Amino acid sequence: MSRILFSLFILLSLSQAEDTLASWNDGKSKNNIIAYVASVTDPKSADFIPVVDRIAVFDNDGTLWSEQPAYFQLFFAMDRVKALAPQHPEWKTTQPFKAVLENDMKALMASGKKGLFEMIMTTHAGTTDEEFDFIVTEWINTAKHPTKNVLYSELVYQPMLELLEYLRANDFKTFIVSGGGIDFMRPFASEVYGIPSNQIVGSKLEVKYENKQIVRLAKLRFNDDKEGKPVAIHYHIGKRPVAAFGNSDGDFAMMEYTEANKKYKTLQLYVHHTDDKREWAYDRKSHIGKFDKGLDYALKNNWTVVDMKNEWKVVYPFELAK
Amino acid sequence: MSRILFSLFILLSLSQAEDTLASWNDGKSKNNIIAYVASVTDPKSADFIPVVDRIAVFDNDGTLWSEQPAYFQLFFAMDRVKALAPQHPEWKTTQPFKAVLENDMKALMASGKKGLFEMIMTTHAGTTDEEFDFIVTEWINTAKHPTKNVLYSELVYQPMLELLEYLRANDFKTFIVSGGGIDFMRPFASEVYGIPSNQIVGSKLEVKYENKQIVRLAKLRFNDDKEGKPVAIHYHIGKRPVAAFGNSDGDFAMMEYTEANKKYKTLQLYVHHTDDKREWAYDRKSHIGKFDKGLDYALKNNWTVVDMKNEWKVVYPFELAK
Repeated sequence: MSRILFSLFILLSLSQAEDTLASWNDGKSKNNIIAYVASVTDPKSADFIPVVDRIAVFDNDGTLWSEQPAYFQLFFAMDRVKALAPQHPEWKTTQPFKAVLENDMKALMASGKKGLFEMIMTTHAGTTDEEFDFIVTEWINTAKHPTKNVLYSELVYQPMLELLEYLRANDFKTFIVSGGGIDFMRPFASEVYGIPSNQIVGSKLEVKYENKQIVRLAKLRFNDDKEGKPVAIHYHIGKRPVAAFGNSDGDFAMMEYTEANKKYKTLQLYVHHTDDKREWAYDRKSHIGKFDKGLDYALKNNWTVVDMKNEWKVVYPFELAK
Repeated sequence: MSRILFSLFILLSLSQAEDTLASWNDGKSKNNIIAYVASVTDPKSADFIPVVDRIAVFDNDGTLWSEQPAYFQLFFAMDRVKALAPQHPEWKTTQPFKAVLENDMKALMASGKKGLFEMIMTTHAGTTDEEFDFIVTEWINTAKHPTKNVLYSELVYQPMLELLEYLRANDFKTFIVSGGGIDFMRPFASEVYGIPSNQIVGSKLEVKYENKQIVRLAKLRFNDDKEGKPVAIHYHIGKRPVAAFGNSDGDFAMMEYTEANKKYKTLQLYVHHTDDKREWAYDRKSHIGKFDKGLDYALKNNWTVVDMKNEWKVVYPFELAK
């Protein structure tokens, strides 16, 4: 295609994208996304990618929805501790449960990753798939975020919803590859993000098949973080992605694995939390969503880094209604 | 809907299915399939299933393609042993490799499941995803079945290809849930069956992420057989299927799990190998694809059991050309 024709093609793509990426300010990130999608979906482009290989992977916490002041699954687990406490009198004196029952966030955090994992496993275990689906669905439809005071599902990022939709409109298959629990995400993420349950991948508890049911066990089977993410992509998707979206060092391996795709042009995009008014501002020193080595690499290697504060017109869908 | 209208609806469905299930003789199995699909896709039926929940799971070996005189992946592993033998002089004196190099099937089978597993793991390990894809693709495009003397991919069942297509035309999502290796199936099964790689589930080797590559290890991670099948469905699909297709006792747990779907009407179909002329005839006493307890249960519980000899006009696609 001649340069003029290609410019026309980009212009046309831009105007089509205008509707779907409406909450993105014009700027580097939006341009990068549109130029990438235009080049790999144009059958005459040298960068054309056949539809079957248009695989896009998204982290969830901090990439598709907020993750502050703690991962939302942690709040879910805390609410489960409170709900199950009458059956567990011993929790009154055992950490990390004691801390939860006393609303002592400091003591809870002091129990470290091990304590938090134990809490998640203990409160998730023993349930069948159907029971757990029901519990999560009820929670997501009623529980409110401690400071934003809205449903957790209202804290998804409007620009990222539009990006998911834009990619799917261009025949990309969108996947979630998250450190969050696969069983926790599936009951609501399908509807919220428009992603079928079999394209939602996350950390896993061991389960057993018994009495025609799947039952959760209190044992971690797979931690879908860092180097676990390419491994999960291997098992669940079976091909190397062409586009990867994350927000922290935990997503780096997945994005590096995507960048190393030898067959196709790729896109790597990091959401950078720069907005302490509408959302939160954190990166290199945060204990949640630490974004340090990944940020250095992204800046050096020309990955797309979204400046949330300046590039997003709105953060959450409820801002649109205002 | 009145009974007359529903009969008309079934007749209409029948005539539509006529084209897509062309290799199925009229009979109980074909009728069961069509009646099921008609009832669950009719928005006015009490049995209607929303599109997102139309999940159909298929075993592969013996259900979608042949599995005699041994699983085809075993022949692949044998060919790998021969190709890799120059680098492994010790194999000349070590079972099960010695048996393979001497074409001694009896000694090979005598090494039992453990020996066969070892052979598969040893020959698959050490390769990256991209290397292994290439090796499998080359093999499937050139290697021939020992007695049928055609490519292995020509030994898929034409009626089952039509069934897959018919279900997808009715907005079912089709999955493979096979005891065979997930890495072995994916390079060709997508194209042969029209099923995307992320909907192909099977047994897994451990892998590691290293140098931006996924590399296979000589260790079994997950045996996707028997009770493993519902577990794999839990992890990969995240919802209970409504239709399940198998041919052996190894598929029973998956089919029982499907039948126990409390929300929707289900279909369970077993392919019964009754044709010793066009394919093979085997069931209760076979060491491959043993079909004994599953057959009893199916007959008692009104599952659909396909009599291959009498219900399939052709078995393989190449018969159509004759």
